[in-house]
Amino acid sequence: MSAIITLTTDFGLTDTYVAAMKGVILSINPEAKLVDICHSIQPRNIRQAAFVLSTACPFFPNGTIHTVVIDPGVGTERRAIILRAPSADFVAPDNGVLSYIIQQSLAEPIERDAKRRQIKLPPEMEAIAITKPQFWRSPVSPTFHGRDIFAPVAARLSLGFPPKDFGEAITLVTMLPFPRPYQAADGSLVGHILHIDSFGNLITNIKNTDLPQTRQKMTAEVSGHVISGLSHTYADGKGLVALVGSSGYLEIALKDGSAYAFLNAEVNSEVRIRLGGGQ
Amino acid sequence: MSAIITLTTDFGLTDTYVAAMKGVILSINPEAKLVDICHSIQPRNIRQAAFVLSTACPFFPNGTIHTVVIDPGVGTERRAIILRAPSADFVAPDNGVLSYIIQQSLAEPIERDAKRRQIKLPPEMEAIAITKPQFWRSPVSPTFHGRDIFAPVAARLSLGFPPKDFGEAITLVTMLPFPRPYQAADGSLVGHILHIDSFGNLITNIKNTDLPQTRQKMTAEVSGHVISGLSHTYADGKGLVALVGSSGYLEIALKDGSAYAFLNAEVNSEVRIRLGGGQ
Amino acid sequence: MSAIITLTTDFGLTDTYVAAMKGVILSINPEAKLVDICHSIQPRNIRQAAFVLSTACPFFPNGTIHTVVIDPGVGTERRAIILRAPSADFVAPDNGVLSYIIQQSLAEPIERDAKRRQIKLPPEMEAIAITKPQFWRSPVSPTFHGRDIFAPVAARLSLGFPPKDFGEAITLVTMLPFPRPYQAADGSLVGHILHIDSFGNLITNIKNTDLPQTRQKMTAEVSGHVISGLSHTYADGKGLVALVGSSGYLEIALKDGSAYAFLNAEVNSEVRIRLGGGQ
Repeated sequence: MSAIITLTTDFGLTDTYVAAMKGVILSINPEAKLVDICHSIQPRNIRQAAFVLSTACPFFPNGTIHTVVIDPGVGTERRAIILRAPSADFVAPDNGVLSYIIQQSLAEPIERDAKRRQIKLPPEMEAIAITKPQFWRSPVSPTFHGRDIFAPVAARLSLGFPPKDFGEAITLVTMLPFPRPYQAADGSLVGHILHIDSFGNLITNIKNTDLPQTRQKMTAEVSGHVISGLSHTYADGKGLVALVGSSGYLEIALKDGSAYAFLNAEVNSEVRIRLGGGQ
Repeated sequence: MSAIITLTTDFGLTDTYVAAMKGVILSINPEAKLVDICHSIQPRNIRQAAFVLSTACPFFPNGTIHTVVIDPGVGTERRAIILRAPSADFVAPDNGVLSYIIQQSLAEPIERDAKRRQIKLPPEMEAIAITKPQFWRSPVSPTFHGRDIFAPVAARLSLGFPPKDFGEAITLVTMLPFPRPYQAADGSLVGHILHIDSFGNLITNIKNTDLPQTRQKMTAEVSGHVISGLSHTYADGKGLVALVGSSGYLEIALKDGSAYAFLNAEVNSEVRIRLGGGQ
Repeated sequence: MSAIITLTTDFGLTDTYVAAMKGVILSINPEAKLVDICHSIQPRNIRQAAFVLSTACPFFPNGTIHTVVIDPGVGTERRAIILRAPSADFVAPDNGVLSYIIQQSLAEPIERDAKRRQIKLPPEMEAIAITKPQFWRSPVSPTFHGRDIFAPVAARLSLGFPPKDFGEAITLVTMLPFPRPYQAADGSLVGHILHIDSFGNLITNIKNTDLPQTRQKMTAEVSGHVISGLSHTYADGKGLVALVGSSGYLEIALKDGSAYAFLNAEVNSEVRIRLGGGQ
């Protein structure tokens, strides 16, 4: 069956870990269509992976199987899971790497200062703990479940095996805390940089829907710089611009350059939104 | 339909922009065969992309659809176009990124000091301005036409939709000026470095056919070094060698090393060809 | 035919050399399934490529065709070969890049201080010297046999052409010397670092089967540090750990960090295994 299987890892492209996973998948389902989402996640950075994954998944066809291997706890007690969401399946360690995917379906957002913890799945999702070794490669390397567990499970899912064949249904899964934007005492909206892309655009956790209605008059403050108004495109205006990027998050960009290099900002740096000018 | 769609961008591989485009394409044509040409174009470097693209396209099957998204003007008035050439289709912004592809079909080369400008298409090509939004994703992000316009247009082209379904025929397209080699007053041929590959080979704009007939006696001068004669392979001779590379351009290489690191040459550095020794 | 063709090169991903090979393959067999194993081999590093290739090949389906282009001698007298092993075909220069693949089938390992040399193929393998130009692109660039010879040969193999159609059977192929572990005068086992992966894990040439039976009491010494015992996972213990990695080789890793950065070790650095504590 020509299902689509995507791969997201922190393996990089200089080793053969990704290729070994692809070989395993194609050995089980030679018709699988393999698509790389990203292999440049920082080593062991579950939070970055969770965000990055959520920016790509919505654009894949229904029924796509997303294999996600950012797995610093490989070989320990951490569970491996299949998450069946309405439009896609995910095969991943249960370490929070699916937090953004799950949160998009939650009725109430996780509060700002939550710790990493177990939450109850929203009703439109189901999850399975992967426990049945007959579907794994044997022996399983304690250091590479991507190749020996996640890849063969994803490949068999793509052949139409139902998730319950791979283990038991579970109702609690691990969520990471999210640094969500909040209203400060002075009325400004305080967000943080989530991700810096390869153009040097600073992508914040402030969503389009979080912004004030009168957004043409807003200012964004980051690393001591104040940007007035909201641009539509990278080519608008001059110098630093604030705009709503293609995934629906507020971004800070520099026309014809890298806002990252210019501002020396970092992931987690604060971005503050104020209404009506002033600084 | 299992058409081949290639992707060339300046998006890099650390973000999910490329994956989002692939997801969109596969949502429309699940049978499309996706091939990456290059995603490491320097950000916004239209000229580099134009050259790099032209070195790969000739090796793809007839009917391949090349999607090219180096698009610093995304969201502005710059047009998006489909270019139908005799052996392939191109979906790209009309910003000069197809200049080398178009030039290969021009009866007369563009003169050396031409500015970026509109030129009339050669008769064997046709072009369409992409204007009909019913084939786009909706809403269109003003910062990511790659995902919302170019990808869905390429996917539908691959399903057999004729180019005219996507907009109006146009006859003028944007060309970049080319730094072409020229004859200096002293009779030497002066070219420039167009591209430096990952081995550190310096690829010039001097084509095989520009070189003197008696090329065994020629010298190439670059960054104060003089190289005598023309080698056939990288392993020929010792130290610096000049040879005609696999795309038909004169290259400067260093045996078992990087000419780039050794010479400290740059893109646009001058390379001067003389006949018959001397320096 | 939808055969799998893999690609391993030192071409990197910033140029279009890999894409040109893919275009050539798809022009001959549009149904070929292309999988990248690695394109980040250090330029001209045949030994690294030989190792890296051997860690990925075992996971691909029977009949996969592996195209390997680390080819510093391109255009010289070095031969191009097809190696037919029991479970896969290889198309590569005969420069030692298939040494690990061949060695896995040898009855006796190559001795430690062997030089690069010709060896007789094990009986379950056959090899062909690629000599018949009718299956190549024409003209052949003397600097890019990957595109003009290896790619078209691999593509036609994938269509079912038998190896003998491409040239003459040969019985001797080139082997690189292997830095194999050895017993030192004091009874310790001395190995070397073969490869450093992108997590900074140091992968040695000491195989699982080379280790002492009482391995819980062993120590590993590297760059002046002594590691006691053998861990099962990267998350085990604290600080530096020694463990058997997913390809069956002893690795030195740093919990939540890079052993490479911490130890400042290099490829070829010595790793010494002792039984029963002591230092």
